[in-house]
Amino acid sequence: MKLLEDRIRRDGTVIGTDVLKVDNFLNHQVDPDLMQAMGAEFYRQFHDANITKILTVESSGIAPALATAMEFHVPMVFARKHKSLTLKDDLYTANVFSFTKQTSNTIAIAHKFLSADDRVLIIDDFLANGQAVKGLTEIIADAGATLVGAGIVIEKTFQKGRQMLDEQGVRVVSLARIAAFADGQVVFADEQDAE
Amino acid sequence: MKLLEDRIRRDGTVIGTDVLKVDNFLNHQVDPDLMQAMGAEFYRQFHDANITKILTVESSGIAPALATAMEFHVPMVFARKHKSLTLKDDLYTANVFSFTKQTSNTIAIAHKFLSADDRVLIIDDFLANGQAVKGLTEIIADAGATLVGAGIVIEKTFQKGRQMLDEQGVRVVSLARIAAFADGQVVFADEQDAE
Repeated sequence: MKLLEDRIRRDGTVIGTDVLKVDNFLNHQVDPDLMQAMGAEFYRQFHDANITKILTVESSGIAPALATAMEFHVPMVFARKHKSLTLKDDLYTANVFSFTKQTSNTIAIAHKFLSADDRVLIIDDFLANGQAVKGLTEIIADAGATLVGAGIVIEKTFQKGRQMLDEQGVRVVSLARIAAFADGQVVFADEQDAE
Repeated sequence: MKLLEDRIRRDGTVIGTDVLKVDNFLNHQVDPDLMQAMGAEFYRQFHDANITKILTVESSGIAPALATAMEFHVPMVFARKHKSLTLKDDLYTANVFSFTKQTSNTIAIAHKFLSADDRVLIIDDFLANGQAVKGLTEIIADAGATLVGAGIVIEKTFQKGRQMLDEQGVRVVSLARIAAFADGQVVFADEQDAE
């Protein structure tokens, strides 16, 4: 998605060898017009798949997932990373390890919000090692729901997540695919392919 | 907002004497069409106020705040409750005590996303004791920005938050105002007024 690649080039900051900071339009400050455009693109890619539910993980996934749900007019459910006092129902849970934060979280979705009738599109901001998406796929399997695919805002092709999902036969649509960071600059997969 | 009051009556669950669970359309499963309608209503109320930024707190505030930002076409910034490795800039911080969870959090917004030129609309899912909004107003004051008002999805008029904001002269627009819980049912303020 050119709009997103241009935005990453302009406003993204590469830190070290594998971190891309996009906190000025995606995961701290959020550009609503960009979210809307991304939601429309995910809809274009998955609109014929009879999606009944959009799933993501708090917090950074919520904005792109809501924008996508607005296009599909289906509910969005965000997995919570810890239980609150007002969330005591039976829960589907999965463990998610964050390489960035070096911590492990339990993510949880209430049973009542995911059923065997659901056809689910996962939306997330990043696909790197794929731990968050993996946790959501486990929850979807537990619920007996159908995983239709995963819509990713930014994929790092050089980390393990994409390969893992390909091996599971999950259809993945990534709006920007980053192949490498070179000299503090982002190299997109389509540029690398063109070389 | 009748659409929201009807939804609370239909899908909200009263727990004990002061907790309203709305996890099937607002803060776990999210109804995107309702979010859009709420965003449009906040726009209607504040569109002439030259808003430059929408502020909220992760995670439950993000969906209504994004929907509102989509109407205004201005950036939405969500305060983070804990620092991540990719967020090392200078931060505005405030302490927020959650009566529901009985825990205290630090919320933080990067300096670069809030300036003295900003005219800020706070959006949040609940106004009860007002601690989250209070934290955001402190951050807005630290940044020298202008607080234009607060748009609240559900206000509990019988807790202290509204009075605190009124005393500070903050313009508050609440889409649903709950005056009491009686026999497990919600009593809205406009119903009580009518009695």
